[in-house]
Amino acid sequence: MGSAEFDPTAGAPAVAVDIGGTKVEAALVDPRGHVLSGTRRRAATGGATSSDGLDAAVLEVVTDVLTGNVARAAAATSGLAGIGVACAGPVDDATGLVTPINLPAWRDHPLRAVISAAPAVVDSGAAVVLRRDGVAIAMAEHWSGAGVGVDDMIAMVISTGIGGGIVLGGRVVPGNAGHIGQIEVSEHIGEPSLGSRTTLESVASGPHTVAWARSQGWSGSTGEELAIAVSDGDPIAQRAVDRLVDVVAQGICSACALLDVDLVAVGGGFARVTDDLVDRIAHRVSQHPLPYVASTRVVPAALGDTAPLVGAAAFVHRPDLLPR
Amino acid sequence: MGSAEFDPTAGAPAVAVDIGGTKVEAALVDPRGHVLSGTRRRAATGGATSSDGLDAAVLEVVTDVLTGNVARAAAATSGLAGIGVACAGPVDDATGLVTPINLPAWRDHPLRAVISAAPAVVDSGAAVVLRRDGVAIAMAEHWSGAGVGVDDMIAMVISTGIGGGIVLGGRVVPGNAGHIGQIEVSEHIGEPSLGSRTTLESVASGPHTVAWARSQGWSGSTGEELAIAVSDGDPIAQRAVDRLVDVVAQGICSACALLDVDLVAVGGGFARVTDDLVDRIAHRVSQHPLPYVASTRVVPAALGDTAPLVGAAAFVHRPDLLPR
Repeated sequence: MGSAEFDPTAGAPAVAVDIGGTKVEAALVDPRGHVLSGTRRRAATGGATSSDGLDAAVLEVVTDVLTGNVARAAAATSGLAGIGVACAGPVDDATGLVTPINLPAWRDHPLRAVISAAPAVVDSGAAVVLRRDGVAIAMAEHWSGAGVGVDDMIAMVISTGIGGGIVLGGRVVPGNAGHIGQIEVSEHIGEPSLGSRTTLESVASGPHTVAWARSQGWSGSTGEELAIAVSDGDPIAQRAVDRLVDVVAQGICSACALLDVDLVAVGGGFARVTDDLVDRIAHRVSQHPLPYVASTRVVPAALGDTAPLVGAAAFVHRPDLLPR
Repeated sequence: MGSAEFDPTAGAPAVAVDIGGTKVEAALVDPRGHVLSGTRRRAATGGATSSDGLDAAVLEVVTDVLTGNVARAAAATSGLAGIGVACAGPVDDATGLVTPINLPAWRDHPLRAVISAAPAVVDSGAAVVLRRDGVAIAMAEHWSGAGVGVDDMIAMVISTGIGGGIVLGGRVVPGNAGHIGQIEVSEHIGEPSLGSRTTLESVASGPHTVAWARSQGWSGSTGEELAIAVSDGDPIAQRAVDRLVDVVAQGICSACALLDVDLVAVGGGFARVTDDLVDRIAHRVSQHPLPYVASTRVVPAALGDTAPLVGAAAFVHRPDLLPR
């Protein structure tokens, strides 16, 4: 969210890297969680890309950031704090191997080792810390977003998929914890996702919600079109949003019954399909019969699409939020 | 599970108290997790009992244990380590107020204060530590049961209700976390539980499984009768167990997708409805498409019906397993 000019007195910036199903981004992020102006780089990934092609995309953006003017200025003054990498899951924290669901070319791929061996990374002397992207988003919202001061929280994203991360006792839960899209929901059937049609993601992801609306006779084909149709009063589009509210609230209630958190921050592009989507989900959660579930605050995520980068930087800048 | 004679050289025992929907139990438990022989006391509770009646039942068993021969011998030699109380949830750890779902006479009831003020407790000088029963069960299985050495685990109970507790990073998750019976499941409709017919508990608790079998034409009325009918080859009873396996495996997969634990210990009387129930659940979980879910070990709980007492004692003997 916040961006800033590089200021060597603010402390050494981190290189933050976010690797997802459609793109890889990297940027410098300072110790206050601000993305440094002019440092953000992006390259395409995609489920059809080969493993070598994915590696090349990652190394291109990382090298671009490390050899850019701002990184060179930082190296000469404050130094670089390290390299934080957020990758789509599952991820093995201990080995640095990644197996992203939506990047099939990578299965037990040694991503941490690949990045660590890149010449620009070796030259920088910076260490690489790799975690799952949902872990990054949860750390980011807890560090400088909607969850500041809330020690027990979930951050989730409704987008092409549905995922997230968990903070308990003021520290992020490591590994693959937070895959909220993979929990079962009742009374709805969606499109196949990981072999199931009854998980939160299979019912309520952006593409699957669009597919449901089309199955009911709606003629659009994107989430953006669905958002317009809702605001135009299209009854099928409105029912699609009603269904989305119902099933996301269900998923949040299940997670909150299991985890007893105080806050759920909901982000991702599809969470903006209507202006009041998160408010409507919050209202549904507030009606749960268990008081400790009903009292959970459900709020919009604060960091928008910089959350994974800010969280990747937090792997470096805020090790106190990682598990002991 | 283990029981032992009092031995002052083994260290000061704790008074352990377990308060549930049908009974309250108390006993002395030594620092190794052994229930001391001859110290276990029990009184009835029940959903129709008044608040004063419940208090009286609790204070009766606690006083009986504290004034018994073994406690007096301990007080004169090793001393008493403290009083650990496990209560049906929800429980507010900070205030010591309890609101057990199945004891409607208690709503925000100051249980910790009531026990702390009992004359025998005041005389003993022992402090009272109160937590939810599912937290106790998870601590017990991690301390001395099926989860020894496993830092990320769930312990759950299938009985009149379905509940449990969570250990992450070698420490129990506090508060109400672990209410696995309250998560949604797909493709099954059960009996109403907390206003829902689509949670794990509403579909798969002992009484609700029996009710389903009866709805299909089975003529028995208890879990014990259902167990016999299964072993006799009754097709409806067998289908009831198939349904139980399916839905409990679903609930475990949801919890494991969200939490990335390594082990789930399954206990409770209804988990013994067939000898192979937990093995069948484990097999279903092993087929999950997410490898980190499929690799979760699902095993029988080891401590049987002493788990809540052993866990309540762990509140005193193993503060290192409680949150920092």
